[in-house]
Amino acid sequence: MSNILDNVNDLEDFKSLPVKDLPKLASEIREFLVDNVSKTGGHLAPNLGVVELTMALHYVFNSPNDKIIFDVGHQSYVHKILTGRKDKFNTLRQLDGLSGFPKRRESIHDIFNTGHSSTSISSAIGIATANKLSGKSDYVVAVIGDGSLTGGLAFEGLNNAKINDTNLIVILNDNQMSISHSVGNLENYLTSLRSNEFYRSSKKNLKTILLLIPIIGKPIYKFLIKVKNTIKHWILPKSILFEQFGFTYLGPIDGHNLKSLIKILQRAKTAKKPALVHVMTQKGKGYKPAEQNPDIFHGVGKFDKTTGEIIAKPSSSYSQCFGDELYRLAEKNDKIVAITAAMASGTGLKNFSKRFPNRFFDVGIAEEHAVTFAAGLASSGYIPVFAVYSTFLQRAYDQIIHDVALQNLHVIFAIDRAGIVGEDGETHHGIFDLSYLSHIPNLVIMAPKDGNELKQMLDFAVNYNGPIAIRYSKGGFKNELVCTTPLKFGTAEIIKEGKDLTIVAIGKTVGTATKIQEILKDKSIEIINARFLKPLDKVTILNSIRKTKKVITIEDNVINGGLASSIKDLIVNEKNIESKFFAYPDEFIKHGRIDEIEKLYRIDAESISKQL
Amino acid sequence: MSNILDNVNDLEDFKSLPVKDLPKLASEIREFLVDNVSKTGGHLAPNLGVVELTMALHYVFNSPNDKIIFDVGHQSYVHKILTGRKDKFNTLRQLDGLSGFPKRRESIHDIFNTGHSSTSISSAIGIATANKLSGKSDYVVAVIGDGSLTGGLAFEGLNNAKINDTNLIVILNDNQMSISHSVGNLENYLTSLRSNEFYRSSKKNLKTILLLIPIIGKPIYKFLIKVKNTIKHWILPKSILFEQFGFTYLGPIDGHNLKSLIKILQRAKTAKKPALVHVMTQKGKGYKPAEQNPDIFHGVGKFDKTTGEIIAKPSSSYSQCFGDELYRLAEKNDKIVAITAAMASGTGLKNFSKRFPNRFFDVGIAEEHAVTFAAGLASSGYIPVFAVYSTFLQRAYDQIIHDVALQNLHVIFAIDRAGIVGEDGETHHGIFDLSYLSHIPNLVIMAPKDGNELKQMLDFAVNYNGPIAIRYSKGGFKNELVCTTPLKFGTAEIIKEGKDLTIVAIGKTVGTATKIQEILKDKSIEIINARFLKPLDKVTILNSIRKTKKVITIEDNVINGGLASSIKDLIVNEKNIESKFFAYPDEFIKHGRIDEIEKLYRIDAESISKQL
Repeated sequence: MSNILDNVNDLEDFKSLPVKDLPKLASEIREFLVDNVSKTGGHLAPNLGVVELTMALHYVFNSPNDKIIFDVGHQSYVHKILTGRKDKFNTLRQLDGLSGFPKRRESIHDIFNTGHSSTSISSAIGIATANKLSGKSDYVVAVIGDGSLTGGLAFEGLNNAKINDTNLIVILNDNQMSISHSVGNLENYLTSLRSNEFYRSSKKNLKTILLLIPIIGKPIYKFLIKVKNTIKHWILPKSILFEQFGFTYLGPIDGHNLKSLIKILQRAKTAKKPALVHVMTQKGKGYKPAEQNPDIFHGVGKFDKTTGEIIAKPSSSYSQCFGDELYRLAEKNDKIVAITAAMASGTGLKNFSKRFPNRFFDVGIAEEHAVTFAAGLASSGYIPVFAVYSTFLQRAYDQIIHDVALQNLHVIFAIDRAGIVGEDGETHHGIFDLSYLSHIPNLVIMAPKDGNELKQMLDFAVNYNGPIAIRYSKGGFKNELVCTTPLKFGTAEIIKEGKDLTIVAIGKTVGTATKIQEILKDKSIEIINARFLKPLDKVTILNSIRKTKKVITIEDNVINGGLASSIKDLIVNEKNIESKFFAYPDEFIKHGRIDEIEKLYRIDAESISKQL
Repeated sequence: MSNILDNVNDLEDFKSLPVKDLPKLASEIREFLVDNVSKTGGHLAPNLGVVELTMALHYVFNSPNDKIIFDVGHQSYVHKILTGRKDKFNTLRQLDGLSGFPKRRESIHDIFNTGHSSTSISSAIGIATANKLSGKSDYVVAVIGDGSLTGGLAFEGLNNAKINDTNLIVILNDNQMSISHSVGNLENYLTSLRSNEFYRSSKKNLKTILLLIPIIGKPIYKFLIKVKNTIKHWILPKSILFEQFGFTYLGPIDGHNLKSLIKILQRAKTAKKPALVHVMTQKGKGYKPAEQNPDIFHGVGKFDKTTGEIIAKPSSSYSQCFGDELYRLAEKNDKIVAITAAMASGTGLKNFSKRFPNRFFDVGIAEEHAVTFAAGLASSGYIPVFAVYSTFLQRAYDQIIHDVALQNLHVIFAIDRAGIVGEDGETHHGIFDLSYLSHIPNLVIMAPKDGNELKQMLDFAVNYNGPIAIRYSKGGFKNELVCTTPLKFGTAEIIKEGKDLTIVAIGKTVGTATKIQEILKDKSIEIINARFLKPLDKVTILNSIRKTKKVITIEDNVINGGLASSIKDLIVNEKNIESKFFAYPDEFIKHGRIDEIEKLYRIDAESISKQL
């Protein structure tokens, strides 16, 4: 049997296929996805869910003149396969390989880089506006999931679509999930929209009943039909949320039926207003293990494609330590509540959510709300812990300042995935958090060297009465290190005394520092675990530096605004100190395995040792 | 005639008044507001608009057990008057006086500090959740304007209100304005909701017609009534946006009729779901000049209360220079487009908006959208200029990184109201921008010493192909200074040569530096205008410092992450340099006149001179 995908090397090949061949191509693409991602890891389930949708989009629209923007972007694999990158799929998410997200530098068909959610409508409006100003009539299509739609930015976008953006089309890719199940009132609303039973039953009932009435039944029915808006609300009562935002609503439609998809997209092109097409898809579609566990296969490492078994089991991680300890603390203190923005699993809160369902809040993809909601809880005497990825907390920068720090409220930020996150790359690395937090008044900032210290810090944070952040890295940590001194507010820990050089490290880079001492056996290194970036233990650190006359800092953050800056501040008026500062440079950091990236940017133990 | 307000000193006094006395009290409060604000300046129009609403809220609810949160908070004057702060109104917005915004430290009736918009629903949900967890049945009321409702955070809040938050009440204070007129699809929707003519006509028509039908008309009508949801959508078709979010919708109602207000608020208390009460108010109500020019009287300086004439005419300001120059540049370059988030007047874009209506975009209070929308425009070859206040751009921190800088897009950030803004105080000072911008890769950051340099920088920015920010202070600048060298990428300007001391200043603090030289006539000071914080002109600055061996920096930003940090970075490995760094300390800065604040924090020319 001939393989269609073999002969589809670019969009031209694809668009010349007859419609009847498309379903077969769809299953070949699924096979290709499962086969490749089982070896590279990646966002499998979201891509399996949009095979037909992506094909239909490229079949109906004319990329790159028509511009297709993938919100979040981890569901762009099929798009990449169809736009000439099939042969590079074995390099997916690897250093110098294909990115797992749309990148303008990779292809002219990647219109707008995405990674964080809810940006597609606003950027699409920007592009549609540019088209209008330039007199172009090309289409701009934003493909956004129901999970991403809960982000405030998406609403700001919906609110700003102009009635004359007739070439703007929003595809609501409705899989009833963000990473875990979607939440919130919008989700309830979409649930009713999905079934749309009311549409069928009420319309039928009305007509049946009225037409049973002799003589006047028919005129009444006609009269009612004439009251157009009323009837519209009557027979399609649930769709009008989007219509109230000025959109023509089309759907819901089966997102795995290519013929219907093509038909509805063609209809969307002729809408007199911006159109919203509601497409129902199934995450993981066509691969049983992913259909059954779409959250496990949302973003997955290597796996056995026959059994669906994950190959690299996660080892003990910061996230897990955090989850375990918060669970333990919450047993003793009923004021503790936990908040996540659609990341219950990733942040280690699953067990907490089961044990304390009333004290657990998944707010959906809505980081701003999460922080201000936490501030409200704290203002009423609760101790909210917002567990969030470093890169996504960026979205709540203003709320941290304005709603939490300004009122000095006791909100705990448990910042996971700080530093380099590896394969997701530049949009997801958590390398700005020390910088965007360190200048916020009232905020205490800690980072643990290992899981044990993370637990101590969480204990400390629960008992501290003010805004406080703990940031920790993705995945495991170097072996648990000996804890030499108990955790005390604003104090550092001397891991090891020495006289030739002071290394000040924070978080997981304390492990790097101990490794440097192992490599440089002849050097007498004093290793300081800062523990608190803010308030910094100036006395301990300065005493050490005055003794050794030489200091380096190591941190998995950008060079400006983090630990390096704090130490520079400390020593700028000291005499005769030599210093070097190891951190990520002032640039966006590419994707690749964490250890590869550390080596590439020369902040692993071996590279630093060579520079001393 | 006796004056009721004289005898209303706290909530108890107020709540013991009979309803019939309330209208008279309302007009006395209006008089009190006009009288006081004419002397102190302040947010007059918003407060005149909510006199009855605030009275009704305090009449019906039991503060502070019931918690009333004022979104944005500049409309909390009436609330302050009724809750025991009437006698301090002559100190409003003055150093150590009453704040113009709710402050928890000021009163137990100030439940949650506000200042930035769209936070009230999320914080109210936090408090309502805390109440529920503690078994309290007190009410939580969020008062939010239609302008603030366009902020994404407000939507995230609406989406997260739980069906069992029965004690949560949202008051939509609908005055059809944010600071200027509200915009967007939601606003169009509210317009239809306001008139609600359809409600009256269609309900009446339906009933009339059906009941005219003998025998079966009545049963049909009854049948239709039974199809409850359908009928609800029929007779109240426009309200269901909020109902789709799970709210009971009540209104719209005249917000200046105390009796109706009290009645509807009492009804809201018995709703089985969270309630949204739609209240129509008029900004500036009861004071003709403010009714006629609600945007001028939104936030106003001292004025003549008889004539309504503003006393302190604004002098030449950075905002005005910006607006003039952008207008001039846009005449020559049709790729330039301007974006504001509800601040066309404040940012100096009024003339631009009139001259180039197709290239001007007021997105409403939606800073995140503004930035991502700009990124979309830039990705299509346009040159978007987002004019925004420093403190509000905080809300788009993630979008600057993720949607603009990461793609190295040519978006210009014209950051107004940087540094101390004076009377609005801690929620509004723009003292974090250098810190939150300086660690963002690819971003160029400039700050002009005066209006002339601002114009040059804007010219430069239009011709620079990448993300670029110009930040400038509120109001006027010191006299135009001589421009010694043309503006060149990444280069500083030596304002004056000297040999005893190097002063590195940026933006308006260059004026401070020249004043210091005037005060310290005997000292030979080298004054450097950094111009670019990033990339910093390391060569020029380091050469100067190596010559003088002594450096100070002056900036109107917090001490961490701005100019001081950049210079520390530069000199940390230099030998025998003395240094001092003048900036705002790591704390929230109180309100007061700009010159008072500068003096208080000892970063005015006189204070610095004494410290040298």
